[in-house]
Amino acid sequence: MIEITLPDGSVRSYDNNITAMDVAKDISEGFARNVISAKFNDVTIETSTTLTTNGNLVLYTWREDEGKKAFWHSSAHILAQALEELYPGVKLSIGPAIENGFYYDIDLGNRSISDKDFKAIEDKMLEIARGKHEFKMKSVSKADALSLYKEQGNEYKVELIENLVDGEITFCDHSTFTDLCRGGHIPNTGIVKAVKILSVAGAYWRGDENNKQLTRVYGTSFPKQKELKEYLELLEEAKKRDHRKLGKQLELFTFSQKVGQGLPLWLPKGAALRARLEDFLKKAQQKAGYEMVVTPHIGQKELYVTSGHYAKYGEDSFQPIKTPKEDEEFLLKPMNCPHHCEIYNAKPFSYKELPKRYAEFGTVYRYEQSGELHGLTRVRGFTQDDAHIFCTTDQLDKEFKEVIDLVLYVFGSLGFENFTAQVSVRDLDTPEKYIGDPENWEKAEQAIINAAKDKGLNYVIESGEAAFYGPKLDFMVKDALGRSWQLGTIQVDYNLPERFDLSYKGSDNELHRPVMIHRAPFGSMERFVAILLEHTGGNFPLWLMPEQVIILSISEKYEKYAEKVLNLLENNEIRALIDNRNETMGKKIREAEMNKIPYMIIVGENEENENKISVRQHGGEDLGMISVEDFSKIVETEIHKTLKQFKV
Amino acid sequence: MIEITLPDGSVRSYDNNITAMDVAKDISEGFARNVISAKFNDVTIETSTTLTTNGNLVLYTWREDEGKKAFWHSSAHILAQALEELYPGVKLSIGPAIENGFYYDIDLGNRSISDKDFKAIEDKMLEIARGKHEFKMKSVSKADALSLYKEQGNEYKVELIENLVDGEITFCDHSTFTDLCRGGHIPNTGIVKAVKILSVAGAYWRGDENNKQLTRVYGTSFPKQKELKEYLELLEEAKKRDHRKLGKQLELFTFSQKVGQGLPLWLPKGAALRARLEDFLKKAQQKAGYEMVVTPHIGQKELYVTSGHYAKYGEDSFQPIKTPKEDEEFLLKPMNCPHHCEIYNAKPFSYKELPKRYAEFGTVYRYEQSGELHGLTRVRGFTQDDAHIFCTTDQLDKEFKEVIDLVLYVFGSLGFENFTAQVSVRDLDTPEKYIGDPENWEKAEQAIINAAKDKGLNYVIESGEAAFYGPKLDFMVKDALGRSWQLGTIQVDYNLPERFDLSYKGSDNELHRPVMIHRAPFGSMERFVAILLEHTGGNFPLWLMPEQVIILSISEKYEKYAEKVLNLLENNEIRALIDNRNETMGKKIREAEMNKIPYMIIVGENEENENKISVRQHGGEDLGMISVEDFSKIVETEIHKTLKQFKV
Repeated sequence: MIEITLPDGSVRSYDNNITAMDVAKDISEGFARNVISAKFNDVTIETSTTLTTNGNLVLYTWREDEGKKAFWHSSAHILAQALEELYPGVKLSIGPAIENGFYYDIDLGNRSISDKDFKAIEDKMLEIARGKHEFKMKSVSKADALSLYKEQGNEYKVELIENLVDGEITFCDHSTFTDLCRGGHIPNTGIVKAVKILSVAGAYWRGDENNKQLTRVYGTSFPKQKELKEYLELLEEAKKRDHRKLGKQLELFTFSQKVGQGLPLWLPKGAALRARLEDFLKKAQQKAGYEMVVTPHIGQKELYVTSGHYAKYGEDSFQPIKTPKEDEEFLLKPMNCPHHCEIYNAKPFSYKELPKRYAEFGTVYRYEQSGELHGLTRVRGFTQDDAHIFCTTDQLDKEFKEVIDLVLYVFGSLGFENFTAQVSVRDLDTPEKYIGDPENWEKAEQAIINAAKDKGLNYVIESGEAAFYGPKLDFMVKDALGRSWQLGTIQVDYNLPERFDLSYKGSDNELHRPVMIHRAPFGSMERFVAILLEHTGGNFPLWLMPEQVIILSISEKYEKYAEKVLNLLENNEIRALIDNRNETMGKKIREAEMNKIPYMIIVGENEENENKISVRQHGGEDLGMISVEDFSKIVETEIHKTLKQFKV
Repeated sequence: MIEITLPDGSVRSYDNNITAMDVAKDISEGFARNVISAKFNDVTIETSTTLTTNGNLVLYTWREDEGKKAFWHSSAHILAQALEELYPGVKLSIGPAIENGFYYDIDLGNRSISDKDFKAIEDKMLEIARGKHEFKMKSVSKADALSLYKEQGNEYKVELIENLVDGEITFCDHSTFTDLCRGGHIPNTGIVKAVKILSVAGAYWRGDENNKQLTRVYGTSFPKQKELKEYLELLEEAKKRDHRKLGKQLELFTFSQKVGQGLPLWLPKGAALRARLEDFLKKAQQKAGYEMVVTPHIGQKELYVTSGHYAKYGEDSFQPIKTPKEDEEFLLKPMNCPHHCEIYNAKPFSYKELPKRYAEFGTVYRYEQSGELHGLTRVRGFTQDDAHIFCTTDQLDKEFKEVIDLVLYVFGSLGFENFTAQVSVRDLDTPEKYIGDPENWEKAEQAIINAAKDKGLNYVIESGEAAFYGPKLDFMVKDALGRSWQLGTIQVDYNLPERFDLSYKGSDNELHRPVMIHRAPFGSMERFVAILLEHTGGNFPLWLMPEQVIILSISEKYEKYAEKVLNLLENNEIRALIDNRNETMGKKIREAEMNKIPYMIIVGENEENENKISVRQHGGEDLGMISVEDFSKIVETEIHKTLKQFKV
């Protein structure tokens, strides 16, 4: 008899030739029908695997990430079989599950795959799926595995197997197909009811550009046709909301080949939007006792040797800047913290003067390979909404809570309502990996956990995920399309105060080491604006819109009145503009809609006579003819729905 | 008979053996007593020079710059004689007049001069001066001149003479002393009544570090003891106002050896001051139709090859930044204009959309040798209050005038009331030195001159001082100590629009080239704050002060009331803070004075009972006990004396 412990802590006893699926059925037949994968003692197994020892069993359905992973991993096998059948002699290499699907890298020889071939691949995959073939794991000797693939002339699989440790090698069979595989499948191919080939791309074998370029076939699959349809709609919507597309359409930013890739140029509307975001945070930070500083964008190499950044990133970064005559070397700053440490060091502090909170919208530069660059989310130069808090260990608790308040204020004002938090702490089994006094670590971890609890965050604690210099709290935000983004990090740091020999005079008149908090609610202005664009589809919260109102007059005759309305709106601090171009009303309305301007005001004879305005909301309601005062109140109310004062 | 024309246009006839001084005496004996130098037909002469042709004569007194130049040049001769007598065998090299004095570079062999020796040199100079020795020019052959100095073993004078063209060489004698000299002296040594040796320093022969280092003796001299005293007081005051000293005292900025020399770190108070200046200009610029943009601090080398900056400055600048894997080279941006050209190029413009005015507080980096660095006035990284206006040639006139308005608004708001302007135009004799259509040049120069005239500027036109790419207008501002600073440049540019192939569609539907205006009213935030510090001695205009009011309570008992006062002031948008440190009242008052805080508010029993405050102005008046409302009105009035709304 063996004892199986389930996630809810309940224990069930079985004969020791029971499978994971048998346990599922024992729980409930209905549940078992949905179970598609399993883990036993933290190891991924098949649902058909026989359990032979006591242990912890977790059963997954499609709803869990682990279930999806098995589903897409299994789908990659089906894709591989379809490709083998459609392209005889194709050489398979690797085919993992990824976020929202899977891919397979293949060597097609002289042949190629285009979007015209996708339908045939999908049909073949569905045909295989309908066969309800079981996925079955088997072990073979390394020698047999090698000879199998050598016979096929598949140098990729041979290389993969040669790199494995000696011993038994596992394969997975389904139908007539077999593949080198570590395991973790759904019970049979029949569970896959809907498939879609999404794209093909080139991919170097093992990601090394010196190797041969293979063909990567991307696909996704679902247990229901309806789910596939919803996903494809989401993809369409995401494409529409792609911040690169919207950024161009709304004239927010651009890139120039001459300036260089990954170096955004902020156009007037984008710069105004960004400035508004910065001012918003500056205001809140001022209330929270932060002080702005300004530091240069370069620093001597020596500065980063001191901070440790050079040893860690130097080789893979933008290379040092030499001077023409003097023996000096500077680096583009990859982080603002070393500069802020030097500001802290500019004068001695007493414990009475702490905490010091130095904030800067500091632009930093980090080298990324050109292939990695992506719009504003992956760039080579970006501006962090950075701040460093220098405080005593006793102040850490309060400071950390106040930073959380600030981050939550930012999320709330910008319409991110759906988020979770992760507390990253030490791995207590490997104390040698962390610097600093264990007692301080304990205090800091407790401070973070207390703060997260106290602020009612939905958080998980991840052991071993702390940086070597301190524990941290990360926020994961879900956008309107359900995609997760990491936004807002708060880190405790014992390392830099040590490296820069920072100190303060305590009440005991002795010098003590302060502790540092790094934090950036936005993360970077570039990435944040990109995410906000994709989250809102360009319909930013009203307070943030570059232009809140556009005024159109029915004809030239009413332009004077339009001017009067503009002035009244400006007096009420509403950002409006008049479109008095020599274009048709239809075109002006279409463009205003395209530019996502929240309110359109139309003025003509009636409006002027009654001293009112006709208002239409972007993509929505017609508010009818109202007075400017009433309209201003509507705008004000709308703004205050999201933008509130920051309270300390 | 010859005819001598005087600056007022009057013409006098004389025998042709008259001297300049004779003409002075003919005008008036009293005037002649003050005349110390002269120019005849634009050539500097001695007052004893005999005039032998018709011509224009200008006679100078101490009040004119030319008079001062002759005075200090002559003083350098006296210094040289004094040094020869005190240090027999000293080798003289060069000894020019400079701003506010003169120096002489000498080779002392193994000897040296320290501040202990200054008194003896001054005494010897005064002894020579009292001899009332006439300065007399004489001509000698090049050969004789060479043999004189070769005999003395003075390789410096030999080198100087060898570099002169063949023919007669001029010397100047006074007393027993003779020196190689181009002329331009005061009548005799007796006019020098007060001398002061200011400092000694090392100076390489001909400024080349491969040459021998000579001793440079700096001095100044005056016609009256009182003037010397006043000048030395001014120097003392300038030392007190040295922005490096004040910047440290007021905690505005700092430098860090680790970050690197010439790279300022703005401390909280300095960053707040700077942000206030930026906001002030941003507001005015917004009214004037500028749009803010944001661009990166680096650009591909290619960008600067296109702009022409690389060819011109590349070798002497910060060297290119390489990337670890890709064949790319970036440069720290030395100017913002290439980036702004690329922003202009991001979309096509019609003539109806021009002018476009792109503004950015853009931080640029330019290599300066470490020896050249000086506080915030000469740095390696600085933020320009930059903007580029892209307009049609027809719009140039209006745009230029509006930029002048903006510059004058900036000067007025910051207390710079004393300034002149210089219009730099082409040298019409060397058209090959300038790029662009001569007709456009003519238009642009006229636009600038018209604008200067129209705005009532006190300006001079300097032919040949234009940049190769366009004419410009520079402002020279006099600070409170009478020193001149160049502040605010407006430049017309035909070159970059060409190099970046900028265009707009005209009303004729054809593509045309826009013209660019570069402008920066502050110049750079660093240099401007430095000059403002020295101009105001840290007593900035009230609207700009980091802290406008400090509140001190007589004892702990009144701290609650102090808090109440603080809140009232903050409601009135007055920047105040409470000093509630555990220090004596005397110390708090002293520190508030040292920190130049404009108003000190003291609260105690009387103040609380009467719901009033006692106010003391920095370094001045006691305003007595008044209400917070009355005080707020005083502050408001004071602010509006300098800070007015910018009117377009």
